Amino acid sequence: MNPLRRGFSGGGVIQRTLPVPLQQGAEPVLPTAQGGDEYWMQKALEQAMSAVGRSHPNPTVGCVIVKEGRLLASGATEVHGGRHAERVAIQSVADRSQLRGATLYVTLEPCSHTGRQPPCAELVASCGFARCVVAVGDPNPLVAGNGLRRLRETGLEIQTGVLAQEAIAWHLPFLFWQLAGRTLIAAKWAQTLDGQLAYDDGRSQWISGEESRAYTHWLRQKYDAILVGAGTVLADQPALTVRSCVEPHHRQPVRLLFDPAARILSCPEGVWQGLLERTFSPATPTVLMVHPSALEAARQEPRVVQRLERVEHLLPLLEGSSPAATLRAALADPALSAHAGRPIHSVMVEGGPRLLSTLAEASVFDVAHIFTAPTLGGGTRYRLQFPAPYGTGVRLNPMAHARLGEDLLVEYLYPSTQKLLEKLGAGRALSEPVKTPEAA
Amino acid sequence: MNPLRRGFSGGGVIQRTLPVPLQQGAEPVLPTAQGGDEYWMQKALEQAMSAVGRSHPNPTVGCVIVKEGRLLASGATEVHGGRHAERVAIQSVADRSQLRGATLYVTLEPCSHTGRQPPCAELVASCGFARCVVAVGDPNPLVAGNGLRRLRETGLEIQTGVLAQEAIAWHLPFLFWQLAGRTLIAAKWAQTLDGQLAYDDGRSQWISGEESRAYTHWLRQKYDAILVGAGTVLADQPALTVRSCVEPHHRQPVRLLFDPAARILSCPEGVWQGLLERTFSPATPTVLMVHPSALEAARQEPRVVQRLERVEHLLPLLEGSSPAATLRAALADPALSAHAGRPIHSVMVEGGPRLLSTLAEASVFDVAHIFTAPTLGGGTRYRLQFPAPYGTGVRLNPMAHARLGEDLLVEYLYPSTQKLLEKLGAGRALSEPVKTPEAA
Repeated sequence: MNPLRRGFSGGGVIQRTLPVPLQQGAEPVLPTAQGGDEYWMQKALEQAMSAVGRSHPNPTVGCVIVKEGRLLASGATEVHGGRHAERVAIQSVADRSQLRGATLYVTLEPCSHTGRQPPCAELVASCGFARCVVAVGDPNPLVAGNGLRRLRETGLEIQTGVLAQEAIAWHLPFLFWQLAGRTLIAAKWAQTLDGQLAYDDGRSQWISGEESRAYTHWLRQKYDAILVGAGTVLADQPALTVRSCVEPHHRQPVRLLFDPAARILSCPEGVWQGLLERTFSPATPTVLMVHPSALEAARQEPRVVQRLERVEHLLPLLEGSSPAATLRAALADPALSAHAGRPIHSVMVEGGPRLLSTLAEASVFDVAHIFTAPTLGGGTRYRLQFPAPYGTGVRLNPMAHARLGEDLLVEYLYPSTQKLLEKLGAGRALSEPVKTPEAA
Repeated sequence: MNPLRRGFSGGGVIQRTLPVPLQQGAEPVLPTAQGGDEYWMQKALEQAMSAVGRSHPNPTVGCVIVKEGRLLASGATEVHGGRHAERVAIQSVADRSQLRGATLYVTLEPCSHTGRQPPCAELVASCGFARCVVAVGDPNPLVAGNGLRRLRETGLEIQTGVLAQEAIAWHLPFLFWQLAGRTLIAAKWAQTLDGQLAYDDGRSQWISGEESRAYTHWLRQKYDAILVGAGTVLADQPALTVRSCVEPHHRQPVRLLFDPAARILSCPEGVWQGLLERTFSPATPTVLMVHPSALEAARQEPRVVQRLERVEHLLPLLEGSSPAATLRAALADPALSAHAGRPIHSVMVEGGPRLLSTLAEASVFDVAHIFTAPTLGGGTRYRLQFPAPYGTGVRLNPMAHARLGEDLLVEYLYPSTQKLLEKLGAGRALSEPVKTPEAA
């Protein structure tokens, strides 16, 4: 996968993720020729963005229909079980005869199988479109080129690969789940120029600027869950909700508190009250992940027993493994989805430095969102830091970079993710089924 | 000063600093309307770039003359004492009558005083140009608006501020010297995503990629001197010469070895041979900066006495001050220019982490060029790291960012530099003399 075009990121068109007053803090997308395929595919992607967080675990697809250079209709995937983007767009046109000769742009290959909805490919095939332009193929083995094959059979002109990199980045959690068969783990951190994730006095939330925080909140909608370590929970009592990014806010991510040693429950009373107010707020489920043995020990304290009554979602972690293996096992545990009330196909790890360092050392991450503030903060305590025997460094693949206010955002794919996504390259997924690990 | 346009940097048009095979590793400048003022000013800046390192201590100015939408002539400042850019361009036109009605674009205000050359403003005024377009005013008290005033008197249409930010960045060492009256100190380092300036096994030269190294070599031409600490000298025996950037290479920077404790002279014989071959090579003067007391102590070793015979340029440092104050004093010492064979109006500090940390802690720098490689290297030894009492962090002003191969380049102005350059803003320097510290 090559770097995205200027102005695009893992969150889509980066300017469109920020509230209007902040938008000039991010660079706009390079203007493309008005009326060209890329122009309209960008509009389709922006449609998808308007539905961020709404359709999971379905991919959040966007679609526009264009005729004689003018926008005729648009749509995005509805909530799970509802209509797909193509159907929404098509059904919004009262007089179907208008669709004859029009072009349909869609960010992901139309589906060819009957799920909760009839196949989109059949619907698209029936409308008399002249062209169908698709950004990226759907690697879902039930689709995997069949959607496009069906459309080609009707004599429709098919164009694929338009804004493909940008659509892959947008659909990453979905594509990764299809290709890897496991939960995507994203890293997110903000640092100073000299690599501090917090100042030595602990003021972590002020490392990055408003624009970076808004973009982070946007990403929270995109990922199914947010995970933080006990250190961050105790230090900040974070709410971890979607607040600052552009409206609408379709969903709050599930909060996962990774606390193998069961430290959170023994915190001072003032901290506990802050946790109840923010981290365990009713906005969204909060899952406390602990080692059963550590929990047993903590229970000796009467207030821990009391506090446990307020903890609705408790997930026992595997004992005796590395933190990385423990996390992977927890994310694959069906009990997690039950607690969360949704499938957890993607998670963003937001800190703190100790957990991030541990997971970075084990190369647990699949993608990274890193904000760098223009500050030489000094200090030594809150760094991403792990021992490095000779030659163990990991070289990441640049995906996007962008100015966000005075900060700089860089987004990287881990090498294994990059390799996985190459399966989508060169139209392969558009012509032949991709074998998923389960299917192989 | 606002961030530069995409594709520009402290080194000029960033793509033009790289050898042709590497150029696609950097993003191009956004295309401007062909034939517009910005289009031609960019050409003038590229003219200046072609003469990088040639004219110091004169500013490296570029000039193009355009008539009826076509390039008529171009020029850049010659070696010190030679012709200025405007004169070179004008004199390249055999039939002067062709200049009537043409437009002259120049990156810096034409001079109005007689130095080693007669004033450019007079020459420009005599040619019958229709317009004169200037990027930025010359704060030199001998010019400071007088050049433009002279041109206005002739009825010439004057346009100022075209690509002003980009021209300020290009002329920064000259402008800084004029405005601050002291040597500009630039920081340059390359780091991993986790803030390592070298891997724990000491492989520092491989942190950044080819494109970053080429750009660094380009910057070496722009600065009068390169400074490194004893640790880097002993570890790498660096040549510190201009080799990898685009041709022509007009000059090699003077090498300054900052070694208060006189450690370099006592190194093992193998290291010393490497130093003679590379760091003390005849390509350019190398000035060894030591505390006299430390040198005296080192002289007890017979081989140090022997080695001193090979050290042509020795600069005694002030004793009893902080490293930052010591460095400042050394840069202001007239003996330094004598050793260097040129005025030292700007210096780029290239490492290592210990020296950079010490100077960063004291906020000695005026500008910073930072390369970040897409690597999570791990390790703990070679970091930019200094203690940070509450609230002592420095917030820098983003000047430019650019992809360089897989690395990311970010360039910042320190707050005091930013403030200094604001004197050039809003055309102030174009209409009234700017008071330099000496003149105030």
